[in-house]
Amino acid sequence: MPRPWIYYFGNDKADGSSKLKNLLGGKGANLAEMVNLGIPVPPGFTISTEVCTTYYDQDNQYPEGLKEEMQANLAKIEASMNRKFGDLKIPLLLSVRSGARISMPGMMDTVLNLGLNDETVQGLAEAAQDERFALDSYRRFIQMYSDVVLGLDRTRFENLLEEEKEKSKVRLDTHLKAENWRSVVKSFKDYVLRVTGKEFPQDAMSQLWGAIGAVFNSWMNKRAIEYRRINNIPSEWGTAVNIQAMVFGNMGNDCATGVAFTRDPGTGDKKFFGEFLINAQGEDVVAGIRTPQPINIAGKTPENQHLSSMEEVLPECYQTLVEIYQNLEKHYRDMQDIEFTIEKGKVWMLQTRNGKRTAQAAVKIAVDMKDEGLIDKKTAVLRVDPAQIDQLLHPTLDPKAKQDIIAKGLPASPGAATGQVVFTAEEATKCYEQGRKVILVRLETSPEDIHGMHVAQGILTARGGMTSHAAVVARGMGKCCITGCETLQVDQEGKKFMVGKHVIREGEFITLNGSTGDVILGEVPTVEAELSGDFGKLMEWVDEFRTLKVRANADTPHDAGVARKFGAEGIGLCRTEHMFFEEDRIGAVREMILADDREGRREALEKLRPMQTGDFVGIFREMKDVPVTIRLLDPPLHEFLPHSEEEIEQVANRLGYSVDRIKAKLESLHEFNPMLGHRGCRLGITYPEIYEMQARAIMEAAVDLVQKEGYSIIPEIMIPLVGHVGELKIMREVVSVTCEKVLKEKNTELKYLIGTMIELPRAALTADQVATEADFFSFGTNDLTQTTFGFSRDDVGKFLPVYLEKKILPRDPFVVLDLDGVGRLVQHAVDLGRKTKPQIKLGICGEHGGDPASVTFCHEIGLNYVSCSPYRVPVARLAAAHAALAEKKD
Amino acid sequence: MPRPWIYYFGNDKADGSSKLKNLLGGKGANLAEMVNLGIPVPPGFTISTEVCTTYYDQDNQYPEGLKEEMQANLAKIEASMNRKFGDLKIPLLLSVRSGARISMPGMMDTVLNLGLNDETVQGLAEAAQDERFALDSYRRFIQMYSDVVLGLDRTRFENLLEEEKEKSKVRLDTHLKAENWRSVVKSFKDYVLRVTGKEFPQDAMSQLWGAIGAVFNSWMNKRAIEYRRINNIPSEWGTAVNIQAMVFGNMGNDCATGVAFTRDPGTGDKKFFGEFLINAQGEDVVAGIRTPQPINIAGKTPENQHLSSMEEVLPECYQTLVEIYQNLEKHYRDMQDIEFTIEKGKVWMLQTRNGKRTAQAAVKIAVDMKDEGLIDKKTAVLRVDPAQIDQLLHPTLDPKAKQDIIAKGLPASPGAATGQVVFTAEEATKCYEQGRKVILVRLETSPEDIHGMHVAQGILTARGGMTSHAAVVARGMGKCCITGCETLQVDQEGKKFMVGKHVIREGEFITLNGSTGDVILGEVPTVEAELSGDFGKLMEWVDEFRTLKVRANADTPHDAGVARKFGAEGIGLCRTEHMFFEEDRIGAVREMILADDREGRREALEKLRPMQTGDFVGIFREMKDVPVTIRLLDPPLHEFLPHSEEEIEQVANRLGYSVDRIKAKLESLHEFNPMLGHRGCRLGITYPEIYEMQARAIMEAAVDLVQKEGYSIIPEIMIPLVGHVGELKIMREVVSVTCEKVLKEKNTELKYLIGTMIELPRAALTADQVATEADFFSFGTNDLTQTTFGFSRDDVGKFLPVYLEKKILPRDPFVVLDLDGVGRLVQHAVDLGRKTKPQIKLGICGEHGGDPASVTFCHEIGLNYVSCSPYRVPVARLAAAHAALAEKKD
Repeated sequence: MPRPWIYYFGNDKADGSSKLKNLLGGKGANLAEMVNLGIPVPPGFTISTEVCTTYYDQDNQYPEGLKEEMQANLAKIEASMNRKFGDLKIPLLLSVRSGARISMPGMMDTVLNLGLNDETVQGLAEAAQDERFALDSYRRFIQMYSDVVLGLDRTRFENLLEEEKEKSKVRLDTHLKAENWRSVVKSFKDYVLRVTGKEFPQDAMSQLWGAIGAVFNSWMNKRAIEYRRINNIPSEWGTAVNIQAMVFGNMGNDCATGVAFTRDPGTGDKKFFGEFLINAQGEDVVAGIRTPQPINIAGKTPENQHLSSMEEVLPECYQTLVEIYQNLEKHYRDMQDIEFTIEKGKVWMLQTRNGKRTAQAAVKIAVDMKDEGLIDKKTAVLRVDPAQIDQLLHPTLDPKAKQDIIAKGLPASPGAATGQVVFTAEEATKCYEQGRKVILVRLETSPEDIHGMHVAQGILTARGGMTSHAAVVARGMGKCCITGCETLQVDQEGKKFMVGKHVIREGEFITLNGSTGDVILGEVPTVEAELSGDFGKLMEWVDEFRTLKVRANADTPHDAGVARKFGAEGIGLCRTEHMFFEEDRIGAVREMILADDREGRREALEKLRPMQTGDFVGIFREMKDVPVTIRLLDPPLHEFLPHSEEEIEQVANRLGYSVDRIKAKLESLHEFNPMLGHRGCRLGITYPEIYEMQARAIMEAAVDLVQKEGYSIIPEIMIPLVGHVGELKIMREVVSVTCEKVLKEKNTELKYLIGTMIELPRAALTADQVATEADFFSFGTNDLTQTTFGFSRDDVGKFLPVYLEKKILPRDPFVVLDLDGVGRLVQHAVDLGRKTKPQIKLGICGEHGGDPASVTFCHEIGLNYVSCSPYRVPVARLAAAHAALAEKKD
Repeated sequence: MPRPWIYYFGNDKADGSSKLKNLLGGKGANLAEMVNLGIPVPPGFTISTEVCTTYYDQDNQYPEGLKEEMQANLAKIEASMNRKFGDLKIPLLLSVRSGARISMPGMMDTVLNLGLNDETVQGLAEAAQDERFALDSYRRFIQMYSDVVLGLDRTRFENLLEEEKEKSKVRLDTHLKAENWRSVVKSFKDYVLRVTGKEFPQDAMSQLWGAIGAVFNSWMNKRAIEYRRINNIPSEWGTAVNIQAMVFGNMGNDCATGVAFTRDPGTGDKKFFGEFLINAQGEDVVAGIRTPQPINIAGKTPENQHLSSMEEVLPECYQTLVEIYQNLEKHYRDMQDIEFTIEKGKVWMLQTRNGKRTAQAAVKIAVDMKDEGLIDKKTAVLRVDPAQIDQLLHPTLDPKAKQDIIAKGLPASPGAATGQVVFTAEEATKCYEQGRKVILVRLETSPEDIHGMHVAQGILTARGGMTSHAAVVARGMGKCCITGCETLQVDQEGKKFMVGKHVIREGEFITLNGSTGDVILGEVPTVEAELSGDFGKLMEWVDEFRTLKVRANADTPHDAGVARKFGAEGIGLCRTEHMFFEEDRIGAVREMILADDREGRREALEKLRPMQTGDFVGIFREMKDVPVTIRLLDPPLHEFLPHSEEEIEQVANRLGYSVDRIKAKLESLHEFNPMLGHRGCRLGITYPEIYEMQARAIMEAAVDLVQKEGYSIIPEIMIPLVGHVGELKIMREVVSVTCEKVLKEKNTELKYLIGTMIELPRAALTADQVATEADFFSFGTNDLTQTTFGFSRDDVGKFLPVYLEKKILPRDPFVVLDLDGVGRLVQHAVDLGRKTKPQIKLGICGEHGGDPASVTFCHEIGLNYVSCSPYRVPVARLAAAHAALAEKKD
């Protein structure tokens, strides 16, 4: 028998289950699963994702047999609800919702109350004994359907509603009466006729097909594509459509609707956490138009304590809900995000899914559930997404800093953020491109704002609750977010917001504390993240499963210290050029560059050497007994010279050179493509005295600590930008001769390694040859990406955004390692390098070393370690554990 | 039995033969071979190249057993000559010469008259009945030995000789008497004692070992290394040492010495061609110190007709020599370069080897020998070195141009050259690096001048004959050269030369005609090379053996015409950007760049379109019925904008824009690394309208010629700088939609191909993916070399010379394809591309397409064609034939 297109659920029996998530989407699979668990769910059916993919494969044609299956399943719903679709007396109304494999909040469109028309609305009114409710539902339906299916501008309907309110001198929707709603319905329908030239569709079946088509089409709308791009979701997955009998949370005060999490999605605390609204439809809660009430007494905060909780006003329903949520969490062994509606005292579950959570919550929930025996250690480790924990690793506000708190909102997504105020996503993007940090301030956010939220440091909205669009999306992104800050008056046109006596204009700085909801004037200093407690526990488990070592890129003793705190097992990249820029030595560096001959350069280098030795002593001391890889000088020399007229003059005066001499040197050092120019080991080859000085400084520092303080150090000296084994051979000779000289002078022995960056395609392609002269390889994937793609990282801004928009590239290759191109090259180099030297030490020190997907790749090809920025070390550790566990599973 | 270290030859019997060239070196093998042929050769032996390599492998220690073998072989010589080495009465004297596999003229050191000392010199005087001769020989020996073995400055000896001449008021060496020579010998020996603290070695055996060591050591001297670098000779080959009984050309007027070629090495004419000197040693001829006499009457020229030929003065010896040379040429089936000495009427052959020749001579000799039945067609093709024929393809002096001839010398190496006068190799190199063309003017050249000769356009010397150092080396290099221009007074210190009333200073232009010996004042225009006659015949044979197609890179109808004339079978790369720079269109190009939006760009592009169409009509017409690959716009747009203040103002006025607008655009287009920036298909993706215009122009041009003139054209449209298949997919869509539109408008059908450059490592690494969207690949090895090495071609001058000097890179990878790196990548891409599309058309259009070694590689990996500059097309054709023949041999 061929697989059906449609899967029914209802009355304790479902065709599907949570196992069919790819076919039914997350929502459909969970609805089926809930039914199987005996949880009350309005009956309905799921049109599978295969229908969506077939629909797109067949140029927007539905597959054969779909219509018949739908008729049959619709009949089952009618039987179960004892109502008939399109019936004039007791009409069955339907909701139509999308549901992809992975929840895409706000991305896909939904139609509620489908089946209403000029006649069935009367039947609903009679059945519910509430004409006002029926007409309100009808106008909601017209509005939604016109927006989602007919593609009309939603704000025009809102304006028509505002007109009615003004005419009736009423401020709130709830104060409108049945006659008002009738008038609104008429004006809505008139508007549809005027704009589309056709009457609003009255046939229920046509409405249903229209809505299904709209869901499928919305899979390819711009917002959905954008969301998938950001979240790496392939468009081939498709969406399912869930069609379900409507139940009503807005049929009176014994009705309600709400959303809840089985644990606190912000902190991970084990407490039932949610919001609801009496006499409302689900959309009202999520859209953040009314500030919702807490679901229980425990959920009360200073901000919402004036509102009654469901525990208080609907205690029986609350109790049912508690039983259901406990049942669900036990079943799914994960924190659930549920939606429910109460229709005349009966609780209906509309949805359950694994709840999105902050990184902090993810860690706490994973650790707690392990401790509760719900999950094992491996599962706990796998529960925390490496991409997410970054937010735990960044500084929070310095508690000792003075904070001028000007407003308080809901702590929707924790962390701290400082930036310049902007009011639109466009402005946020523009500033981001200029390298500025911004806080996006909105009345409320909508899916159109996604790209702005993506680039902002933090998000502040005047409206919306903890489950509003802004809150959910920000938590998913790991961004600091404050919602429902109702004292804010946002004047988007005027590019300012007012709060109390303050007027904050675009470009002014504010600071958000996403953990408290505090909005603070100006910039506030921050302190480092705490890495103890649950996080520490989890990271201990992580290290039990991980086989890939994690080092850090650190150039100073301070960074080295941070790196160790974050669990770094060594330094994979210590860039010596940063040391050259420091105030007390840049003068000597410039003397060296401006010298006319080797002797002059040596003289200047001798001034630098004691300082370099000091640098290395500091770093070795900090990294005591773990390996440190030091890269010799890499950037082109002109980077160390002044460039502006003023600076040139200053430097000339300080060094006692003529301005012309400096300018002449600048001229002679000018390059058309400095990225491909005189840098890296090319400097070492033309000016070996530089590398000699550095090698001496490294060895003297190491020997000193070994001799006087009993350290055990094996310095790893790294030659940059090697493309040909001949370069490495000469540099190895220069460095090792110097090292041996130092050892002889100090009358001691010390093991040291000399290796190379693999950051040019030629080095990778000839890694078998390069390996003959290298004790280790470190893949410099930043440069390797530049040369493999032929992309200058500094110039890519002119076309890379277009590439991402047009989906030519799935992701920014400077962030996520390009496996097809650069990855193949790295793999190739690993194979060749090991062919020559099976035991060669292999690592990566590009920024990809801290990207989870790239870490997985590094694990798979068998590197010894990744090295990344200190703050990304725990991310890499977790990603490495995930990779090791995934491998075991295979 | 182990292989001996030493091989004897003499008395019609030799241990070796020409088959043992690798072991005995060219000179040793040919001496053995001559002995086997019954030709009179002074007896001697060859110390094999294995001794040299063993010597270097063992840290300058001779192998065991060598000494014993030498004693034995020395005894054989003594027996054959009936003289004893070191004997006081009839001393045997020896020559010690180097001899590598390939002749390295002037590169290796030689010692003559070895065995002379204060006592044996008396024996020699008595044996020769000529004290003056014996003392002259002795002083020559001291001078040579001191220079070569003891490392003393040769000019100091020359000065001592000059002192003696001044003291004796004598101008020529030949006028010095025995007593003068005795005094010179004394002053030489005193000088040696003074400088070295030791007496000049008197023991013959010590002298011999010293000389052998000097030969081996000279293999690693700077000049030898430089020569090997330029000529791609591996240092592992080593040199042999030839030790041979001395015969004397300077024992009186029945003695002579000379060098000759069995055919004219300049023109290839089948005539015995050579020079000799009566009463002289071989070194006197080669060093060019005395202007030598022609060997025969046929060799007389207006310049040397006052000198008697050997045919006239030593007719019997001449006849013997003629018989010997005919014997040798018949045996070796190639033109021979021979050295001989006549001692008291007896002809001794000192050397024979395949003669170096100009390209013109190589072609003529190959064709003639084929016609004479000496060699077959294949051998004829293989006899001409592809790297050499370049010189046949360059312009010669325009015969109609006025020529102000200021001097006439020997036409030592044909061709024409114009450049600024320089007087030292250093200055030549300096000017070359500044991109200036120079003529190197010297009194005479020496091996120290090699690097200067290499970079000069041509060489002019005041002294020396057709076989002088300058002449031999220049012919080998294929450089225009005039020697023996004795009217020149060269004042190197004063940086000028005088000739008649003219004073030519450094930096002034002169022109050389290497085919006539004319030295011409100023710059003279040139005309293209003739490609008919023998050359045409040879190239026909070439095409019989070749399987690789050869196309040309040509951007204009004129270049296309030249390319066809040179035998191009299509255009492999037509760069459209050069068209954009032309005076009549750069304005529209700039309008396009400065436009604010797509509409503005389209408007400007519409102005360009008819001109582009015209460009393509012209090129298609010229290439009628052979394929043309057109590359769409590639360079970054800022290249088309003015950059200087003055130009910016002009352009602003002309286009009616503000200066600020142009500056703002320049600012926005500025890139840090334009090579890796917004260019190639990245332009096509961000501004598809540009590629649309170009695609339309190509198709309209093609359709027009097909419809109106019955051409059969299959345009090949090439997308540049693709790194990811997604780029090609989008560009293919843009181009093919445009092409189809044109075809629909014109109501016709036309096949066209859309392909891509493979010029980024990522494209090569993912060629399997790229091939899905490509009808052909063209390897852009210029850019591929840049990105694979991470070398900016524009900036590489700062370190590449050091790389070549330090032998990190064997050759400039922009000239000769780097097989280990870039070659592996190309090979990989070929494999991947064919995996996806077995029939995909593959070519190369980097400058390597005209380099013989790279062409061989392209043949080996099975490319369909190479494309190179029109002038290199015959080089590529010949190289392709060589590659095909080499393959058959395997």
